[in-house]
Amino acid sequence: MYRTNTCGELTESNVNETVTLSGWVQGVRDMGFVIWVDLRDRYGITQLVFDEQRSSPELMEQARKLGREFVIQTTGKVIERTSKNPNIPTGNIELLVENLSILNSSLTPPFTIEDETDGGEELRMKYRYLDIRRNPVKDKLIFRSKVAQLVRNYLSNEGFIEVETPVLIKSTPEGARDFVVPSRMNPGQFYALPQSPQTFKQLLMVGGLDKYFQIVKCFRDEDLRADRQPEFTQIDCEMSFVEQEDVIQTFEGLTKHLLKKLKNIEFEQFPRMSYEEAMRKYGNDKPDIRFGMQFIELNDELKNSGFKIFDEAELVVGINAEGCASYTRKQIDALTDWVKRPQIGASGMVYVRYNEDGTIKSSVDKFYSEEQLRKVIEKAKSQPGDLILILSGNADKVRPQLSALRMEVAEKQGLRNPEVFAPLWVVDFPLLEWNEEEKRFAAMHHPFTSPKPEDIPLLEKEPGKVRANAYDLVLNGNEIGGGSVRIFDKELQSKMFSLLGFSPEDAEAQFGFLMNAFKFGAPPHAGLAFGFDRLVALLGGQEVIRDYIAFPKNNSGRDVMIDAPSPIHQQQLDELEIALSPKK
Amino acid sequence: MYRTNTCGELTESNVNETVTLSGWVQGVRDMGFVIWVDLRDRYGITQLVFDEQRSSPELMEQARKLGREFVIQTTGKVIERTSKNPNIPTGNIELLVENLSILNSSLTPPFTIEDETDGGEELRMKYRYLDIRRNPVKDKLIFRSKVAQLVRNYLSNEGFIEVETPVLIKSTPEGARDFVVPSRMNPGQFYALPQSPQTFKQLLMVGGLDKYFQIVKCFRDEDLRADRQPEFTQIDCEMSFVEQEDVIQTFEGLTKHLLKKLKNIEFEQFPRMSYEEAMRKYGNDKPDIRFGMQFIELNDELKNSGFKIFDEAELVVGINAEGCASYTRKQIDALTDWVKRPQIGASGMVYVRYNEDGTIKSSVDKFYSEEQLRKVIEKAKSQPGDLILILSGNADKVRPQLSALRMEVAEKQGLRNPEVFAPLWVVDFPLLEWNEEEKRFAAMHHPFTSPKPEDIPLLEKEPGKVRANAYDLVLNGNEIGGGSVRIFDKELQSKMFSLLGFSPEDAEAQFGFLMNAFKFGAPPHAGLAFGFDRLVALLGGQEVIRDYIAFPKNNSGRDVMIDAPSPIHQQQLDELEIALSPKK
Repeated sequence: MYRTNTCGELTESNVNETVTLSGWVQGVRDMGFVIWVDLRDRYGITQLVFDEQRSSPELMEQARKLGREFVIQTTGKVIERTSKNPNIPTGNIELLVENLSILNSSLTPPFTIEDETDGGEELRMKYRYLDIRRNPVKDKLIFRSKVAQLVRNYLSNEGFIEVETPVLIKSTPEGARDFVVPSRMNPGQFYALPQSPQTFKQLLMVGGLDKYFQIVKCFRDEDLRADRQPEFTQIDCEMSFVEQEDVIQTFEGLTKHLLKKLKNIEFEQFPRMSYEEAMRKYGNDKPDIRFGMQFIELNDELKNSGFKIFDEAELVVGINAEGCASYTRKQIDALTDWVKRPQIGASGMVYVRYNEDGTIKSSVDKFYSEEQLRKVIEKAKSQPGDLILILSGNADKVRPQLSALRMEVAEKQGLRNPEVFAPLWVVDFPLLEWNEEEKRFAAMHHPFTSPKPEDIPLLEKEPGKVRANAYDLVLNGNEIGGGSVRIFDKELQSKMFSLLGFSPEDAEAQFGFLMNAFKFGAPPHAGLAFGFDRLVALLGGQEVIRDYIAFPKNNSGRDVMIDAPSPIHQQQLDELEIALSPKK
Repeated sequence: MYRTNTCGELTESNVNETVTLSGWVQGVRDMGFVIWVDLRDRYGITQLVFDEQRSSPELMEQARKLGREFVIQTTGKVIERTSKNPNIPTGNIELLVENLSILNSSLTPPFTIEDETDGGEELRMKYRYLDIRRNPVKDKLIFRSKVAQLVRNYLSNEGFIEVETPVLIKSTPEGARDFVVPSRMNPGQFYALPQSPQTFKQLLMVGGLDKYFQIVKCFRDEDLRADRQPEFTQIDCEMSFVEQEDVIQTFEGLTKHLLKKLKNIEFEQFPRMSYEEAMRKYGNDKPDIRFGMQFIELNDELKNSGFKIFDEAELVVGINAEGCASYTRKQIDALTDWVKRPQIGASGMVYVRYNEDGTIKSSVDKFYSEEQLRKVIEKAKSQPGDLILILSGNADKVRPQLSALRMEVAEKQGLRNPEVFAPLWVVDFPLLEWNEEEKRFAAMHHPFTSPKPEDIPLLEKEPGKVRANAYDLVLNGNEIGGGSVRIFDKELQSKMFSLLGFSPEDAEAQFGFLMNAFKFGAPPHAGLAFGFDRLVALLGGQEVIRDYIAFPKNNSGRDVMIDAPSPIHQQQLDELEIALSPKK
């Protein structure tokens, strides 16, 4: 037996017991006459002590050979510490070592295994197995496991069945790019890895399973933006004989359960907002409502006064940044530069500063009278000490720009507190969005999303105005879940495919099995999927998902630890009947 | 709201309540003056009633339009049945329909949605979503979900952390064939899908996670034998600072928990048997010990008596088939033909029949005296009415042949009762097995398995004799789990790779990251993986795993429902910089 106890559990109540511990050497402090060793395992740290009075010279010698991250096994007597450490659970005791054996030695690790490490991102990714030894990473993985268990137990208690859907499925070029897998037994043919189990969960509803969930890996061969992973995890759910409200209630229940269990925060009811309202008030379909700064539309106040930029703009819109009147000219210039960066793309920024003393200063003083600016202040409900920031332009463009600015100001003002949780349902999404490149409508959610029944008559003539029975769950400005009521009528589904530019043949080739299934009594059904990586990170108080993934890939889709992807043998290619065909 | 209740929950206590149900029409019985409709959902069946006395002519008309598998919603009053059905929970009531709406119609399904269906395997696979509506399939999926929950809760309570390991990993040609995934962002390079998370779970141990588990999809591109799937599910586990005994105790605990919770069967302790004993007594490393019929070695009794076949054989070995003396000559001939099939490969079979009246009859009467045959009977501890079946040949070949015969006889005699559970640990496996084709040793378990410390000195000179710290958990003649203590010393691991014929360069290229990890303080660790599909099937009382998988593939690795794999677009191939290269 390697141990009788872990390194995290011995307290004063164990004094005088003889115990065996195993773990890693966190550090050695050699004072000559006494040597302390911190022994670490997953559960904590226990201090080992060797001293000239009570330990044999051989044992002292052995202890001096220990290096950082050596793996040792030790037996000794639990004694009370003279100098206690109140910061750790085992801080009142130490182990007077009687026996020590080195189970494995260690090279000096390439970075320190401490909560605050000296290792850079790249190095820590390469030696991820060492990074995982650090509490901040280890604790995140344990947290993730805990969230998954809570989700599974909650949904199981609600009557959901976890069903594993296949990973080797069929390529469907609609949507993002698939990863594909050549089939050796069916040469020239390929499986695809699922971007989501969407069609399978719908088939499970046709199959009468009534309530399905799965915590499942999904795959997208996208050019990776920061913090996107080619493989990611979803909590995938679907229900039959339900309407939008049933789904919202169920998953609001799940989310409340998680917030209560993990954060001890209780909610009455999550607020809801239509997509249209979210765009108008926040310029964003996933607004962060931990703070205000709602958009103030200023066309009436600021257009047609001779300031050409505003006069020509479709929309003049601003935010009131509370307490920011103290921003220096330099700070305001920096913000202006920030919104003018290509990633944001604003042409400029106007400010109206409402000074503490009640005076007003703006960057457009020569175009507007004080009276006009006071009207702006009135509309924005500004208080002395506030700063109004105004952008203008085409409504569709200026809103996202102002949204970005709003988030930037919130960040600067410390309004994005990760320990504050502000969930929000965004509902009534448009069914379709116009794809300017391909000159056609694309599904905003996916092709199986049901239009609102009252909007169906608009499908033919004004498809852009049709709203969907689709809903997103937003947490602190991040979409953590999204779903929709599905089409379960084969005629309507055909019409949708045709609206989306599928020929009947294409629709048949790609989704024939689903269309066919709909001929045999499909029930009304609806569902939702949570982005599990993001959900866990947010609940953990972080926005970066990478540390919540045991073995993440970098922005080129590489696992730098195992060095994958990598070339394969010619024999493997031959068996698959494929060849490399580098671009000329 | 589509329903106030499910179709499985209304009883006499609900009489006079007005309820709304939704579901599928299981069947319609039209007696003219009264129409009964069985309404089905996941939870059960409720009888709807329409009659001339109490229902409007319009409603009667509507009811007559219902076809099998139509999806309907209905509101009505719960009334007591005059003719009760004690076989279903809702059998005492029926619903007097007041409102009926057809939510979706259905074509006549291609097979009946009944517990006993008229649909063949092929058809049911193609319309799997309809097959899932049938109780036997639906119940299996629900059972699987329940087993998974039990496993997760048990292991979580034992301190195991569920960690998701990556699906897009690196190809390692050792072992079975990998499925590979071309990388678009790294042209000419490929990911592989994991055959198991073996190296990752070992890295998690190096990372100090101490106790890991995962219920995880694994992938093997094998030529599919019956009841093998290219994607399958494992309960994958690993522990640090443990010895073989700790792992056995932990997972025996899990298995006992499942048997208790699911079958209400309790075990004191699972029996254990060495690999050598299992092979000698059962000719099989996964013996079915629900019944006896242990091998009886008969060299002393039957060799050197002039019967050339036995005289030349290395091993003459038989089984005593209790109560089978009544087998007719025809039955025995059929068994002889059965063992002579190429799949089994025996050259013949000898029988000794111990008749009820105490007389003896054998197929080798002319070579052996009655006294000699009585010695055989004595050795076999046969009783009057038993039948001894004997095979002979090379020990390595005849044992598996007799093992197959033993199972066949057990099957015929009804000894393989799926409701009897006989777990067994098989231990002390050989570390290596000789690969005759490649003229080299291969790892019996995998290259990371630790030899027994006392056998390490044999590694150089007699590698074939080295036993491993490896163990299999066998249930009813099926291996449901297997694992080993891992090598955690980099020198020993290098030696193993070299024994297995890896050049240092190959070992470095394929497992460099693991070898490297071992330089930084790897703890002693050991683990185990259960075949989850098989485990669930056996616990469900079945040997065929297919029905416990929601969307299984056929023996050509095809999903006949969605028709995958399938050709992909040239554009996809171009983006991946690969080309089809059919065999000439």
